[in-house]
Amino acid sequence: MQKITDPAKDFPQWYLDVIDAAGLADHAPVKGCIVFKPYGYALWEAVQRDLDARIKSLGVQNAYFPLLIPESILQREKDHIKGFAPECAVVTHGGGKELAEKLYVRPTSESIIYTMFAKWVQSHRDLPLKLNQWANVVRWEMRTRPFLRTLEFLWQEGHTCHATKEDADRMVTDALQMYVDCDRELLAIPVLTGRKPEHEKFAGALYTLSTEALAKDGKAIQAGTSHNLGQGFSEAYDVSYLDTEGKAQRPWMTSWGLSTRIIGTLIVTHGDAKGLRLPPRIAPIQVVIIPIYKSGPEQEQVLAACRKLKDSFTGIRVHLDDRDEKSPGFKFNEWEVKGVPLRIELGPKDLAKNQAMLARRDTGAKEALPLEALTPAHLQTLLEEIQSSMLAQAQQHMDLHTHHVSTYADLKKHIEGEGGLVWAPWDGELATAQKVQEETKASIRLLGEEPPEAGAMDAVSGKPAKYMAVYAKAY
Amino acid sequence: MQKITDPAKDFPQWYLDVIDAAGLADHAPVKGCIVFKPYGYALWEAVQRDLDARIKSLGVQNAYFPLLIPESILQREKDHIKGFAPECAVVTHGGGKELAEKLYVRPTSESIIYTMFAKWVQSHRDLPLKLNQWANVVRWEMRTRPFLRTLEFLWQEGHTCHATKEDADRMVTDALQMYVDCDRELLAIPVLTGRKPEHEKFAGALYTLSTEALAKDGKAIQAGTSHNLGQGFSEAYDVSYLDTEGKAQRPWMTSWGLSTRIIGTLIVTHGDAKGLRLPPRIAPIQVVIIPIYKSGPEQEQVLAACRKLKDSFTGIRVHLDDRDEKSPGFKFNEWEVKGVPLRIELGPKDLAKNQAMLARRDTGAKEALPLEALTPAHLQTLLEEIQSSMLAQAQQHMDLHTHHVSTYADLKKHIEGEGGLVWAPWDGELATAQKVQEETKASIRLLGEEPPEAGAMDAVSGKPAKYMAVYAKAY
Repeated sequence: MQKITDPAKDFPQWYLDVIDAAGLADHAPVKGCIVFKPYGYALWEAVQRDLDARIKSLGVQNAYFPLLIPESILQREKDHIKGFAPECAVVTHGGGKELAEKLYVRPTSESIIYTMFAKWVQSHRDLPLKLNQWANVVRWEMRTRPFLRTLEFLWQEGHTCHATKEDADRMVTDALQMYVDCDRELLAIPVLTGRKPEHEKFAGALYTLSTEALAKDGKAIQAGTSHNLGQGFSEAYDVSYLDTEGKAQRPWMTSWGLSTRIIGTLIVTHGDAKGLRLPPRIAPIQVVIIPIYKSGPEQEQVLAACRKLKDSFTGIRVHLDDRDEKSPGFKFNEWEVKGVPLRIELGPKDLAKNQAMLARRDTGAKEALPLEALTPAHLQTLLEEIQSSMLAQAQQHMDLHTHHVSTYADLKKHIEGEGGLVWAPWDGELATAQKVQEETKASIRLLGEEPPEAGAMDAVSGKPAKYMAVYAKAY
Repeated sequence: MQKITDPAKDFPQWYLDVIDAAGLADHAPVKGCIVFKPYGYALWEAVQRDLDARIKSLGVQNAYFPLLIPESILQREKDHIKGFAPECAVVTHGGGKELAEKLYVRPTSESIIYTMFAKWVQSHRDLPLKLNQWANVVRWEMRTRPFLRTLEFLWQEGHTCHATKEDADRMVTDALQMYVDCDRELLAIPVLTGRKPEHEKFAGALYTLSTEALAKDGKAIQAGTSHNLGQGFSEAYDVSYLDTEGKAQRPWMTSWGLSTRIIGTLIVTHGDAKGLRLPPRIAPIQVVIIPIYKSGPEQEQVLAACRKLKDSFTGIRVHLDDRDEKSPGFKFNEWEVKGVPLRIELGPKDLAKNQAMLARRDTGAKEALPLEALTPAHLQTLLEEIQSSMLAQAQQHMDLHTHHVSTYADLKKHIEGEGGLVWAPWDGELATAQKVQEETKASIRLLGEEPPEAGAMDAVSGKPAKYMAVYAKAY
């Protein structure tokens, strides 16, 4: 088994090592693309199952829109095309011929979806129209990293159309809350939420709300965003409806998405020097049973006891690692790297005492338990405890690395030290944010809901502050 | 509501009308691409749920491979590139620059997947390797039709790697049987199975097995295929493993797929003059409740009774159509077009008699039932009865339109008459199959497992027959 770099020494290399050693992904022939191996894809399937139910419970229906978008359609919203065109993959030939019009591989689907909305939305009775799609998108990124930033990634993108700004605002907030809930409840990832500053909002949006998690290396990382697109896209794609009085009105659009980047977020939030740590609710394998035996009569006894245990674990995702060619030590290591929350070890000595050893991946704690105590109910309780404990650990990490400063010196001290999320008063000027970014590589991740205290001055420029901003280095 | 063309007069137009009127799909800006509207996508989601469980029960794991395939990789298997290159979409620009190497949007993923297999498969212990992906693919088709033939479609593609031909044969057969079961059990579509003739097999395969359904217009339509790829792809992509004796061996590959074409198959198998008919197991809405009232005090009484009924239908996908602005007649028609298996009508007269009207979409039969008899258990029984009855109807249609001929005159008579599946002895010559195709537009869909009777002569050429072949016009 491959050695995993010490995360304290080289976090980026640790990240790559974990992905490789845990069998999550592999590099594809096209630079910047990855292959999702089964263990990595199973994490995405778990996110899909969880989030799909949440999306549907918001009254949103799934649909599917085409991969290829004609250039003329992508160009209709000017800010949007400016933001996305430089990172598009372009199809110029199809069926052996050069195409009359270039087709863009979707980098996001506002343009194609709102082209259809223009056709479908006619009356106030057609609103709200709330659709979602699970799809692949391509953005030509230069510096890529598996899951966190790849040329192609998988995501869901919700797109809705509303009669009023208030309705659209509510949708944007509901979608953001859905991400917060999924992040916390499924992935045990606490997140900060807020509005993006103008210069960081989605290309073409009125405003963008975002969730930010905090990686173990002190960098912020986005975990779901939600945009109120205002009426700009309605205008650009000529979507209108007749209100109850028969007057033509422009509807309000929203879009919101969460991508396979969340798998990277999961790794950098929970991983440790031994590899991946998976919260039980998302773990493809929640409990692994490892038989310990020497060849001979004890082998079948031990294996039989392990099989019996496994068969008794109704409702739990359990795996019995009965590979004969691998040693127990190899297996311990492998399943630790893969982040399986609970390990049960069973050898002839345990069997003689009618017990098994139970090891927790989150704390490393080991205890002997009588076999009759190893019930599905006990394991479920333990798995829920691990789930809560991992959320608490991550929350503690975030709390410990959240700072409030009023001077640039303090801002720099934190950013250049252990990183983390640093709140500071901001004057709302792009120039100020840019100066900080150039000098410290930290950007404004979110703006606080509360205004700065009366008389507060920008920590950097010394001018009157307009917002409380969270600065952080970010993925 | 739009009028649906009489299928007896113009089946292709009826097909388009049903898709439009039932709200299954819409045309996308790129010619030949469609948008899956929510009701159409829900059908695909049901297929995914059903088939994904079957795939996993065969020990196959889901993974995900990139959309974009470098030209050099697609070219390695010569028959494969010859078959697919002419229908590929080609990305020549990315990130604002012309690419050094063209990238093909995957038309199918053998080439990229086996490139990865070459890296992952080293020892006999790595076999069998059985992966599946749910993905979109693009093929530049000239004559397109929603669901049945589109530029982009959605599918699952299974790809497996085995130590022996016997293992690969078994996988190919198991995958085919899985499609047969899904077609019959979920979609109520009976299918014929068999091997494709050499000239119709998958580009690069050793042999192809296929399932063929029979549309109501007498045309055959593929509903899942499974290929034994032999060792050709192992050779081309340099996949090898060390056997138990440490000798390098070429593994055997299989691939198998089912696509959103199945939604088209569903429509042409079960639809009728009134529109779609959905088998209950796949129907997004199994029971629709339609309140009948005039404005006034009866309105709330009727609606309350309908809501009570709806809430009592545990475990059933039920919808209460309480739109006030549409008449009951409009609603009857709309839900018939959408193929909902059961309709419940409830008006003040019914309420006075403590009953409701129950209408079956499959037979059109209507009966009055006491409200207390409208239990979830009764509805479930009825839904299962409808499911079986639709399969039986489709099977009867197939039986009635399956013929056995020994002369070309009889073959032509059937093909040029009502169509259907026509069994005839075949000499195994491509020229013979081509002559029939040119003169009648019928192709050989499948070969029978049993050889022809001793001394049987080809129905067309008069030469000794090698196979029993099924001729049909096909989608």
